[in-house]
Amino acid sequence: MEARRKPIGIFDSGIGGLTVAKEIMNLLPHENIVYFGDTARVPYGSKSKETITRFAKEGVSFLMKQDVKMIVIACNTVSATCLEELQEMLPVPVVGVIEPGARAAVKATRNGRVGVIGTERTVKSGAYEKAIQTLNGTIKIFSKACPLFVPLVEEGWLENEVAYHTAKIYLDPLQREGIDTLVLGCTHYPLLKPTLKKVVGDGVILVDSALETAREVAGILFEKCLNREKKDAPSYQFFVSDDPDRFVKVGETFLKRPIDPINVIDPERW
Amino acid sequence: MEARRKPIGIFDSGIGGLTVAKEIMNLLPHENIVYFGDTARVPYGSKSKETITRFAKEGVSFLMKQDVKMIVIACNTVSATCLEELQEMLPVPVVGVIEPGARAAVKATRNGRVGVIGTERTVKSGAYEKAIQTLNGTIKIFSKACPLFVPLVEEGWLENEVAYHTAKIYLDPLQREGIDTLVLGCTHYPLLKPTLKKVVGDGVILVDSALETAREVAGILFEKCLNREKKDAPSYQFFVSDDPDRFVKVGETFLKRPIDPINVIDPERW
Repeated sequence: MEARRKPIGIFDSGIGGLTVAKEIMNLLPHENIVYFGDTARVPYGSKSKETITRFAKEGVSFLMKQDVKMIVIACNTVSATCLEELQEMLPVPVVGVIEPGARAAVKATRNGRVGVIGTERTVKSGAYEKAIQTLNGTIKIFSKACPLFVPLVEEGWLENEVAYHTAKIYLDPLQREGIDTLVLGCTHYPLLKPTLKKVVGDGVILVDSALETAREVAGILFEKCLNREKKDAPSYQFFVSDDPDRFVKVGETFLKRPIDPINVIDPERW
Repeated sequence: MEARRKPIGIFDSGIGGLTVAKEIMNLLPHENIVYFGDTARVPYGSKSKETITRFAKEGVSFLMKQDVKMIVIACNTVSATCLEELQEMLPVPVVGVIEPGARAAVKATRNGRVGVIGTERTVKSGAYEKAIQTLNGTIKIFSKACPLFVPLVEEGWLENEVAYHTAKIYLDPLQREGIDTLVLGCTHYPLLKPTLKKVVGDGVILVDSALETAREVAGILFEKCLNREKKDAPSYQFFVSDDPDRFVKVGETFLKRPIDPINVIDPERW
C-alpha cells in the first residue's frame, strides 16, 4: 500500500490514550487510525522500567503488523520510560507525549515555576524535567506522583469529595512552591480537570499534551509527505488485550464517538 | 523428595496474599512456603474471566515447577473466577479463600444479613453468595464492588480522609440494608480495618478469610498426612514478576518479617 494511505498506530497501556486519539481525529479528520490499548496488563505506572519496556515492545510490534505509517505512544509512562528504544527499534516515525507537553508548559508559564504530575514511573524518570530544561534551563520544576488518579478516573469519580480530597493532598505541596502552570503528565488526568481546577484555582494553567501531540503528528506527516489525501471517510479500528466491554463503556465518554469495531488480541503472542 | 517435606505454594495477583501467608506461617510454623505474586500484571480485579484464568494458570504452573505439595490461591478474584478449573488441572490439593471466608461469615452473623465487599470480578462472580447460601440458605447477602480500595492500600492511605470518604460511599448502601457482618472479600482489605470499623461502627463484625484459610490448609495437611514434622527452621521463598523493591517495602508491613530471598520471574515463559 502507498505509505500515505496507511493508518496511524496509537499505543497506550489502556484507555487514557483515547484523549490523544480524539485530538488526532479532530485535527486530521482524513487519517485512518489503529488503536491498541493493553487493557489486560494496565496500569503500567507503578511497574518497573524492564516490564514496561517489554510490554511496550509487544504492543508496538502488534501495531507494526497492522502496517502503520507512524506510531504515537499516547501514554506518558511509556513515553517517559522507553521512547528512544522504540524509536531505534522501529522503521517508522515514533512520537511520544512528553516533548509536546513540555513545549506547551514552557509556552504557558509566566513565573518559570512549573508543576508536573504523573504516575510513579513518569515522575521517577525525570523525563519532563529533562524535556522542559532542554527548552529553557531557567524554569524550576516541581513534580509529584499521583497514583490514585488513574483508578479514580477508571471508577468515574471525577468530581466527588474523594476526588477533591485526593487532589488536595497531591497538589498542596506543589502550590506551596508557587507554581503557575501544572502539566497533566498522564493521559487519564484531563478527565479530572474540573476538580484540579477547583483545587489549584484560576491562577494556575493546566497543560495537557493531547492537543500538542496531535499538532506534532500533523507536522511530521506533512513534512514527510505521509498525510492521507482527502477522499473518503476515515476508518478507525480499536484493539484491546482484555474484555472490551469496560473499554467501550468508559472509552466512549472520552472519545465522544462510538468505539467500533473493537477486537481482542493477545500481545504476548505477537 | 518425600511429599510432606515439600513446600506449600501460595499464589496471588500481587501483595495482598501475604495476609494469608502470614496466618499460615503463624498457624503452621514448620512449613516451608514458596510465594508467587504476579506484580507485573496486578491488579486482576477489573479484568475478564478469560484473562484472569490464563494468568492464574501460568502462576500455578510456575509454583508446580517448585515441587509444592499443595497450592493456596490467596486471592479472592482468582478464587472466585477459576478455582475449580485449577483444582481439576492440578495433581495437588488447591485451596481458595472464598469458602473459608463464607464459613466465617455464617458463624458470625446473628441477624442473617451479610455484606460482601471485593473487586469487580469477585462481586460479579457471585461466588460468596453461592458459598454462603450452600451453608445456610436463609442468609441474605448484599454485595458491593470497591475498586478503589486496592489502590488506596497500595498507596498506604489507610486511615486518612480519602480512605474514610471512599469507605463511606461504598459501605453506606450496605449499612442501609442493616447488615451485621461484613466479609472483606479481598486480601488487601484487612489493612483498611481501622477505617472500615470507623464507618460501620461496632455493630458490624468484620470477617477476613486469612485466618480461616490457614485453618483449612492445616486441616488438609493433617488429613492427608502432608504436614511437615518439626525439625528445623522453615524456609520461605518469594517470587514476583516485576521489580521487587515495592513488593518488599509494602509487603514487609503486611508480613511483619523480612521478605528474603526474593526473585523475579516471568510467568509467561513458564
